[in-house]
Amino acid sequence: MLAVRDAEDVEELARFVDPPETAWIDVHGLGDERVLRRIGEIFGLHPLALEDVVNAQGRAKAELYPDHQLVISRLPIFEGGGSIDVPQLSLLIGRRHLLSLQERPFGCFDPVRQRLREGVGPIRSAGPAYLAYALIDTLVDHYYPVVESLTQELEDLEEDAIHAAPGTRVLERIHQNRRRLVVLRRVARPQREAVLELATTESPFVGPEVRTFLRDTHDHIAQVMELADSAHELSVALLEIYRSSLGQRSNEIMKLLTMIGSIFIPLTFVAGIYGMNFDRMPELRSPWGYPATLLGMGLLGAGMLLYFRRRGWIGRGRGR
Amino acid sequence: MLAVRDAEDVEELARFVDPPETAWIDVHGLGDERVLRRIGEIFGLHPLALEDVVNAQGRAKAELYPDHQLVISRLPIFEGGGSIDVPQLSLLIGRRHLLSLQERPFGCFDPVRQRLREGVGPIRSAGPAYLAYALIDTLVDHYYPVVESLTQELEDLEEDAIHAAPGTRVLERIHQNRRRLVVLRRVARPQREAVLELATTESPFVGPEVRTFLRDTHDHIAQVMELADSAHELSVALLEIYRSSLGQRSNEIMKLLTMIGSIFIPLTFVAGIYGMNFDRMPELRSPWGYPATLLGMGLLGAGMLLYFRRRGWIGRGRGR
Amino acid sequence: MLAVRDAEDVEELARFVDPPETAWIDVHGLGDERVLRRIGEIFGLHPLALEDVVNAQGRAKAELYPDHQLVISRLPIFEGGGSIDVPQLSLLIGRRHLLSLQERPFGCFDPVRQRLREGVGPIRSAGPAYLAYALIDTLVDHYYPVVESLTQELEDLEEDAIHAAPGTRVLERIHQNRRRLVVLRRVARPQREAVLELATTESPFVGPEVRTFLRDTHDHIAQVMELADSAHELSVALLEIYRSSLGQRSNEIMKLLTMIGSIFIPLTFVAGIYGMNFDRMPELRSPWGYPATLLGMGLLGAGMLLYFRRRGWIGRGRGR
Amino acid sequence: MLAVRDAEDVEELARFVDPPETAWIDVHGLGDERVLRRIGEIFGLHPLALEDVVNAQGRAKAELYPDHQLVISRLPIFEGGGSIDVPQLSLLIGRRHLLSLQERPFGCFDPVRQRLREGVGPIRSAGPAYLAYALIDTLVDHYYPVVESLTQELEDLEEDAIHAAPGTRVLERIHQNRRRLVVLRRVARPQREAVLELATTESPFVGPEVRTFLRDTHDHIAQVMELADSAHELSVALLEIYRSSLGQRSNEIMKLLTMIGSIFIPLTFVAGIYGMNFDRMPELRSPWGYPATLLGMGLLGAGMLLYFRRRGWIGRGRGR
Amino acid sequence: MLAVRDAEDVEELARFVDPPETAWIDVHGLGDERVLRRIGEIFGLHPLALEDVVNAQGRAKAELYPDHQLVISRLPIFEGGGSIDVPQLSLLIGRRHLLSLQERPFGCFDPVRQRLREGVGPIRSAGPAYLAYALIDTLVDHYYPVVESLTQELEDLEEDAIHAAPGTRVLERIHQNRRRLVVLRRVARPQREAVLELATTESPFVGPEVRTFLRDTHDHIAQVMELADSAHELSVALLEIYRSSLGQRSNEIMKLLTMIGSIFIPLTFVAGIYGMNFDRMPELRSPWGYPATLLGMGLLGAGMLLYFRRRGWIGRGRGR
Repeated sequence: MLAVRDAEDVEELARFVDPPETAWIDVHGLGDERVLRRIGEIFGLHPLALEDVVNAQGRAKAELYPDHQLVISRLPIFEGGGSIDVPQLSLLIGRRHLLSLQERPFGCFDPVRQRLREGVGPIRSAGPAYLAYALIDTLVDHYYPVVESLTQELEDLEEDAIHAAPGTRVLERIHQNRRRLVVLRRVARPQREAVLELATTESPFVGPEVRTFLRDTHDHIAQVMELADSAHELSVALLEIYRSSLGQRSNEIMKLLTMIGSIFIPLTFVAGIYGMNFDRMPELRSPWGYPATLLGMGLLGAGMLLYFRRRGWIGRGRGR
Repeated sequence: MLAVRDAEDVEELARFVDPPETAWIDVHGLGDERVLRRIGEIFGLHPLALEDVVNAQGRAKAELYPDHQLVISRLPIFEGGGSIDVPQLSLLIGRRHLLSLQERPFGCFDPVRQRLREGVGPIRSAGPAYLAYALIDTLVDHYYPVVESLTQELEDLEEDAIHAAPGTRVLERIHQNRRRLVVLRRVARPQREAVLELATTESPFVGPEVRTFLRDTHDHIAQVMELADSAHELSVALLEIYRSSLGQRSNEIMKLLTMIGSIFIPLTFVAGIYGMNFDRMPELRSPWGYPATLLGMGLLGAGMLLYFRRRGWIGRGRGR
Repeated sequence: MLAVRDAEDVEELARFVDPPETAWIDVHGLGDERVLRRIGEIFGLHPLALEDVVNAQGRAKAELYPDHQLVISRLPIFEGGGSIDVPQLSLLIGRRHLLSLQERPFGCFDPVRQRLREGVGPIRSAGPAYLAYALIDTLVDHYYPVVESLTQELEDLEEDAIHAAPGTRVLERIHQNRRRLVVLRRVARPQREAVLELATTESPFVGPEVRTFLRDTHDHIAQVMELADSAHELSVALLEIYRSSLGQRSNEIMKLLTMIGSIFIPLTFVAGIYGMNFDRMPELRSPWGYPATLLGMGLLGAGMLLYFRRRGWIGRGRGR
Repeated sequence: MLAVRDAEDVEELARFVDPPETAWIDVHGLGDERVLRRIGEIFGLHPLALEDVVNAQGRAKAELYPDHQLVISRLPIFEGGGSIDVPQLSLLIGRRHLLSLQERPFGCFDPVRQRLREGVGPIRSAGPAYLAYALIDTLVDHYYPVVESLTQELEDLEEDAIHAAPGTRVLERIHQNRRRLVVLRRVARPQREAVLELATTESPFVGPEVRTFLRDTHDHIAQVMELADSAHELSVALLEIYRSSLGQRSNEIMKLLTMIGSIFIPLTFVAGIYGMNFDRMPELRSPWGYPATLLGMGLLGAGMLLYFRRRGWIGRGRGR
Repeated sequence: MLAVRDAEDVEELARFVDPPETAWIDVHGLGDERVLRRIGEIFGLHPLALEDVVNAQGRAKAELYPDHQLVISRLPIFEGGGSIDVPQLSLLIGRRHLLSLQERPFGCFDPVRQRLREGVGPIRSAGPAYLAYALIDTLVDHYYPVVESLTQELEDLEEDAIHAAPGTRVLERIHQNRRRLVVLRRVARPQREAVLELATTESPFVGPEVRTFLRDTHDHIAQVMELADSAHELSVALLEIYRSSLGQRSNEIMKLLTMIGSIFIPLTFVAGIYGMNFDRMPELRSPWGYPATLLGMGLLGAGMLLYFRRRGWIGRGRGR
């Protein structure tokens, strides 16, 4: 039977180095380096493997050491405030045991535990590599909601971008989305490479049967990458659409100002003429002066309106 | 003879596992997972293959399992409202049977059925791999109308983009086109890889003869990719053209406002001067004051017009 | 001796299947599919090869069939109205004969015919592969004038783009150029791959001697691609330059409006003040009121001019 | 025991060519070419290796010579004034000695010296290749603060870019950041290649054990590249965000001008009408003329305000 | 001894086909095709090699022929008027002789001649391949000043771009720089490939010793490419910076106009009100009418100023 337990006493772990049955040792919390070093000694970890586990800042990778297959994975998680956190999961696949280390427990592995408890499928009998596959596959499946949420966000922003809804919030949201896509893609790329290497390289710890399963996982992470690339492309496009829309808006605004100005500035000038106080201005004396001037102004204004309609600035149902 | 039938009773399918002649089992509707799992048992499908078939969300791929060659393909179909749907076709090529599974029947395979019924060409005698090739080739041919329709749409948009037809509809249509191109390219790329792998990898289920045909299919899907890439490039260019055209328009609008303003604002100021009510304004008393002022205004306005003509803002047949 | 003739009677072609000397069969016009199918039967063409020839829509490629080496090439030709047509040339290299098929005769092969007639160089004695090389090399040489014409067009547009010559014609021409570059690059890329494959792959129909010559052709088409890529890069840059130039123009226009407005709007306000009709406005009664006001206006205007000069908007020989 | 000393007398170095124990010869200052050439003679350096060391302008590389493994590395260091300096570290790994040459001492190697002095870990006994690894790994670790500082800078600029803080300082800072990223990426790319080659190529001077360590270093420099690429992507995005924000600002400014103009220019025209001095203007005589005009002006202004509110220019809490 | 001479009489060259010692035949001027063809006959050049030499329009390449190793190189040279010329150097490496051909003498090979005359280093005794290496290395070194000059130009443009110095000269210079970078990169890429092929491919004419030297040359041309790529990236960035700066400028200009307009247009309207000539305007009769109006105007103007200061348009030391 496979034992799942959160080791309290580090020394007790020695029992699991060469257990009679496959053992999964799941370590939470990497705060106490001394404990980790002791675990490393017990399981005979390579110093570099141990360093990668302790450091917890590295990129995803699969590295073969004499006594272990190391797999570093990263899981993207939305944080409050819209940033993305990418905690690390370190797996060390031995011949009879699987050592998994994480800073804090990811809820996402509960289904695996469930299947272990219930003994569903080959998971209990298939050795540490299959168990590692189950964990990595579960982890990769958690990339989907992140990329889908970012894609959904882009679709929500579309309406606002096309109509150039005023307010810098649109810009902020577009940029935040872009920044998160950048993080997601930076994390997903090495993850894909790591899974691919695991799925294609001969390793004494990962049999050909499990590699078939890992190829499927590779398909998933590759699809995540494709979705993220598409989202990135749309994000770039969206900003351009927004800028185009702003340009269009500016056009509309300037059109209005120009129309108002073009109609009334000349008219005001005419009114100014007859507001001058020269002694000799014969028009002012004429009884038809005032109505003739008003008529002239009306004609001038109507002419301008006609001109703008001709240029398609108003009416015809297309504007705005 | 090759049997084409829509199996009603799942258990009846057992007859086709090792049929005397090549059998094509075509399953429509993937709703009832229990039925699918039973089919998987009957034909001895690998759990991963079955999962890919049931899931129906994956990317196109070709995967070799001990008892089958799995080929997942996706077909782009225009949906109402301008989005693109990409239903999945799963093929499982066995030694004597071909299992095809799809959510709902694609009309596009009717020509293949027709050829089967009429017994035209090698299709009836050439085994399940050739039949799979016929289906994939037909499916890939259905990429062409999609990419051509998107390219046509871009050409239709060109006129509006170059002349910056007002209204956000242009932007909406450009962005919708781009979004559909993104989907098409994301789907077509793995499809091409899947066909290429099928055409180049040794497989007990796909003979060298059929691989020659698949290389031709690969050429088609590669051409679709090239057309889609070209369309994408033009789509990016179109938005830039549109933005440039908007900038040009803004220039024109501002030129008009600036001309009107530059001519009438100084003139109005002059009129304002002689509209002042100072007791001692000798010009107002002069009998030549009014005509001289009008003349001065006329010269000022004509000077401005000349200046604008010199700078190429009006006339010379180039503007607007 | 090598026989060049335009076969009238299809059945007569049977003589050339295994001719005593190298034979070149040049077929013009692909309209009559029945004739083509008969030719295919006579020369034992693979059904896929025949389909590629009949279809005439494919991408350039080199494909080895048991009895022939198929080479599909495309030739870019400027059409009236500024678009590019890319007719297809299909070559089928047999052991003793070369079959070439084209929709309509390309004038560009006349030099090859000339050399054949005159018996210059090794062309008459070197077998069908060398003849095919001669045709492909001639075809590739016809890419140069197209890419050079597009590059020249870009240089012609430069002046207009940098000075933002008004009118949408500039935009139209830039976009047309871009569209043609997109077509050219889409066609040239598979052409290069086809020539490269022909030059590097072992084939019973193309000897190592001819492959050396094809490597030279590959160099040419690679150079065409590089020139097209450079042109594309410059085309993208040109649109950006144009847009920058428009922005600069807008700046200039707005500067003028702002200067005129900033000088005369305040002055007009001052004139408006003294145009008011209040009973008690002591300034109006003063004999110095009018000259003092004029002086004040003059100083205000001069101050504004000085301010604009200080900000570099006018004078100093840099503007415009 | 391993000897670390700064050789004063060049000739004395001859003792270290084939030392009884691993020797590290660390040369500071490359000014005196004669001394360098003498060192080259003593250690039997290949002329090209010596030239690369003396020149100190090359890109990072790993090159295998008959008697040495040459590794050129570059270390990015922030200089005053915001530019990045990239001094060179040349390592020559022999069978028993390690020769390191640098223009001026990098403080960053102090931890390595410390570990040597204290004899911690395998560093004293593991031969010149391991020592070279320790130096390269330390050097690569110094890429992190540089890329992190540039990323931090981008985050600091974000707020200003999104709100288009006026002043060209934002542009200057964005451009300076970009320029430094360009330098960093240009330097890091060959560095990664050099480490990769060292880690994967068989070499008599670098054993498989050390190559395992170098693969870890490769992971680090690859991560630096990924971070730099992400930063570059964000830097490009930031400039676009800034430009979009400027466009938005322009919109806001023009909206204000257009509103003020649209409301007051027509009203001023009306006032101008009744400021004309015609003898016969019946409205002027009417006792209700003045209040009616004021009322009409008020209605006109209120109508315009309503219109702008309807178009969403003011109020509703979205604007600005 | 190695003979360096400019052959006057072509037939005399026959002596150098199989000379007792390494011979360098340096041909200047490719105008007389007949002479070149004769040289080709004498040295037994492959027709394609001869064509590449005569044509002098090709891309850099290394091609192995039965009797020679052909190396085509191109050297970028600044021409008057700011364009770049790329003359061709053709090298034909035989077993005992080196044939170099160039349109006009490049001064840049003088140092090689100098070293030959002085007999410094291995150049006189090392055979034609080493001599070819010396020439190629010298030629590649001449790429550096070109790329450095273009980078310097970009740095000089930076100040103008960031402050949007008016005048289209900035645009012209940016575009010219870009165009030259495009040429440089187009020429350098095949040059690098040619050197790489020479350095890595087995060839009877280029021994492993010389290939080690060529790998060093490859490093140089790769560095040139990296510098050119960086310069290109900065050039793209610069145009964007310039455009952003223009947008910022437009903002500043519009702000000024909007402020002036927003303050004085309403005030002018108020003045217009009291300039109307209605008989019954009680305010006009009031002795406080005028001062009250002036006071009101002052308050209105001050309010607007306050509003603009609040929005950060003026003062606070950030603007402009």
